[in-house]
Amino acid sequence: MSATVSPLAPSAFPVMPTLAGIRLATHECAIRYKGRTDLLLVEMDAGTKVAGVYTRSLTCSAPVDWCREASAKGSARLLIVNSGNANAFTGAAGVASVERTVEAAAKEFGCKKSEVFVASTGTIGVVLPDERITENLPAARAKLTEAYWHEAAKAIMTTDTFAKGATRTATIDGQVVTINGIAKGAGMIAPDMATMLSFIFTDANLPHDVLQDLLKKGADRSFNAITVDSDTSTSDTLLLFATGKAGHDSVKDASDKRLKDFKAKLFDLLLDLSHQVVKDGEGATKFVEVTVTGAAGNRAAKTIALSIANSPLVKTAIAGEDANWGRVVMAVGKSGEKADRDKLSIAIGGVQVAKDGQVVPGYDEAPVTAHMKGQNIVIETDVGIGKGRATVWTCDLTHAYIDINGSYRT
Amino acid sequence: MSATVSPLAPSAFPVMPTLAGIRLATHECAIRYKGRTDLLLVEMDAGTKVAGVYTRSLTCSAPVDWCREASAKGSARLLIVNSGNANAFTGAAGVASVERTVEAAAKEFGCKKSEVFVASTGTIGVVLPDERITENLPAARAKLTEAYWHEAAKAIMTTDTFAKGATRTATIDGQVVTINGIAKGAGMIAPDMATMLSFIFTDANLPHDVLQDLLKKGADRSFNAITVDSDTSTSDTLLLFATGKAGHDSVKDASDKRLKDFKAKLFDLLLDLSHQVVKDGEGATKFVEVTVTGAAGNRAAKTIALSIANSPLVKTAIAGEDANWGRVVMAVGKSGEKADRDKLSIAIGGVQVAKDGQVVPGYDEAPVTAHMKGQNIVIETDVGIGKGRATVWTCDLTHAYIDINGSYRT
Repeated sequence: MSATVSPLAPSAFPVMPTLAGIRLATHECAIRYKGRTDLLLVEMDAGTKVAGVYTRSLTCSAPVDWCREASAKGSARLLIVNSGNANAFTGAAGVASVERTVEAAAKEFGCKKSEVFVASTGTIGVVLPDERITENLPAARAKLTEAYWHEAAKAIMTTDTFAKGATRTATIDGQVVTINGIAKGAGMIAPDMATMLSFIFTDANLPHDVLQDLLKKGADRSFNAITVDSDTSTSDTLLLFATGKAGHDSVKDASDKRLKDFKAKLFDLLLDLSHQVVKDGEGATKFVEVTVTGAAGNRAAKTIALSIANSPLVKTAIAGEDANWGRVVMAVGKSGEKADRDKLSIAIGGVQVAKDGQVVPGYDEAPVTAHMKGQNIVIETDVGIGKGRATVWTCDLTHAYIDINGSYRT
Repeated sequence: MSATVSPLAPSAFPVMPTLAGIRLATHECAIRYKGRTDLLLVEMDAGTKVAGVYTRSLTCSAPVDWCREASAKGSARLLIVNSGNANAFTGAAGVASVERTVEAAAKEFGCKKSEVFVASTGTIGVVLPDERITENLPAARAKLTEAYWHEAAKAIMTTDTFAKGATRTATIDGQVVTINGIAKGAGMIAPDMATMLSFIFTDANLPHDVLQDLLKKGADRSFNAITVDSDTSTSDTLLLFATGKAGHDSVKDASDKRLKDFKAKLFDLLLDLSHQVVKDGEGATKFVEVTVTGAAGNRAAKTIALSIANSPLVKTAIAGEDANWGRVVMAVGKSGEKADRDKLSIAIGGVQVAKDGQVVPGYDEAPVTAHMKGQNIVIETDVGIGKGRATVWTCDLTHAYIDINGSYRT
């Protein structure tokens, strides 16, 4: 937790309603941090279903391996998250840590091991002192309560400058359901490396397959469409838990019309949380939306959009409030996706800057420069090839990023 | 040209011998810069052969399009390079600029248009005032001379902090041949975007096909194995000219044993020039060599090595003199190439840091920290899968990079 809050932070943590069947607790285990909570425990009623989306890293952490396997089984009763130690690149010791934690938790709460989900965030390459978690499970258990969302979001922070939460209500078959989510981020954070973690909870009554389908689709256009520095954590974990307490009939098909509103609200919540992660990007002073249209396909559009959003030259230009559209052209060109140099159009802040491969006649930079001075930057590029489109979000690259990531681990 | 020379710059520009059949001139055309030369003219004797390797950008500049087509024809008489304007993303106007320049030069010198090579570097998106080049061709022509390599290297600089040159001698069939090269870089430089340009000249007697084969192979392990900020210029151009004046018999096959020494010296010169480009990377204070072994193949090894070399987190850690091997693990994992987390080994400065997926027992950080304080950083990673290997070079990511690239174009 940083002393200086990101200038892009929301004004306050949202008021989050309680969710029947979900109880939360936080605890100080002194895993690495002193004088703050570093453990989140969530107990869920029997019957809770789960879905997960994980980092694509091929050197992912032991907790990710565990959750990937457990979430495929579909049922959940416990979530245990620690901050301060990522239990990543810890070899056989890391796997054993997860095993011991899960076993102790399953015994303490009387559930199956496959119903216990673990996530760790913080320093990489240091063996997790899992006994600090397991020893404290009874004490944390004694504190479980329903109205504790803000504290839950705080316990999982590492170098985050603000706690991240969001809530939505939706109706399924005439029944009101609630979705609560918390997240931590952003990017790969000092002192070593951190993690994007997000946990979503709902009282909707939906089976694993439907949850998995919705979460995957929602992540593709939210958590998988954000980038701070193009670096992929070994631990990124997004879990969706559904208690089924809302009382409506279970809906067995993700494309069922009765899920239309739920799906929209879930996607909106995922987008909100993922944007909060970007807004807490290391050193971020601008929130940047990059939309690509006219690409060969949606996948090509996303590749081009990420090429723009990840370009250090584009990001430093934004930090310098410079409407340097030439760098956008460069990023399109290096993406490897099909583009036609002489059909390329670029708009910044809604103002057409380049068209048909060259600067627009009589280009007036003044309104674009004014836009660049704001906190929310919008870059639109049409590559003139087809109908593919995608939007991604990022932040600028500033001196503070260098300060945060270039300082020695202490 | 910057007031502050990179701390990684060589102590002096090398003494470069003259090359029979090659005459150079520079001129002040005031294309964008005032009070400095911004035009390089090179005249080559009839019979000169040429090969080219270009940017992979799909939004490449009009001069690149021109050279790609002309170098395939194999003969060269003139090279015309301007600094200050990249003639990139200038649409039909850019193509017409190249046409007019080539036509005027071919007429002035009495050669074919396809024997005229043009390269432009500097601001993007601004129409090139080609009349400033063509008007000055006769004046530049009057100054052509053989001993002018340092001035040639200076005329093509943009925000480079030092002129880049290298020379080698080799023997072909018992005959001594000379190779001279100049370059400018690095990366995509402020004020807008710049370019990696490099021009190599030799008196060897080699046909186009052999030159092309050697240049392609040499570029793969030099100019195509360096990265400053992962951003690809729209204008990168590497040309190799051979006058054939050395007097040995023409060698028709690139794999001919008689070319062994020439090939080694050419590759060494390309490596030297490409390293100079990295050492002039914006804000660079450390020169970084990244070697990956044990990958599924050489291509996979290069992808992993570039993933490490391009990672902002790895580069900021190096700037901060932090032996943060966890970020190397992360970069391996995000590369998308096959790796085995539990077989991964990492050495920094020759000291084993991690082995079999975890930190080495009794890891002593002191010698590694001492290495990180030096100017030359060596990172070796074995991914434990196969026999693929690759080495790439980069620099660190510092505050000066943000200063240079985040400042407004003025």
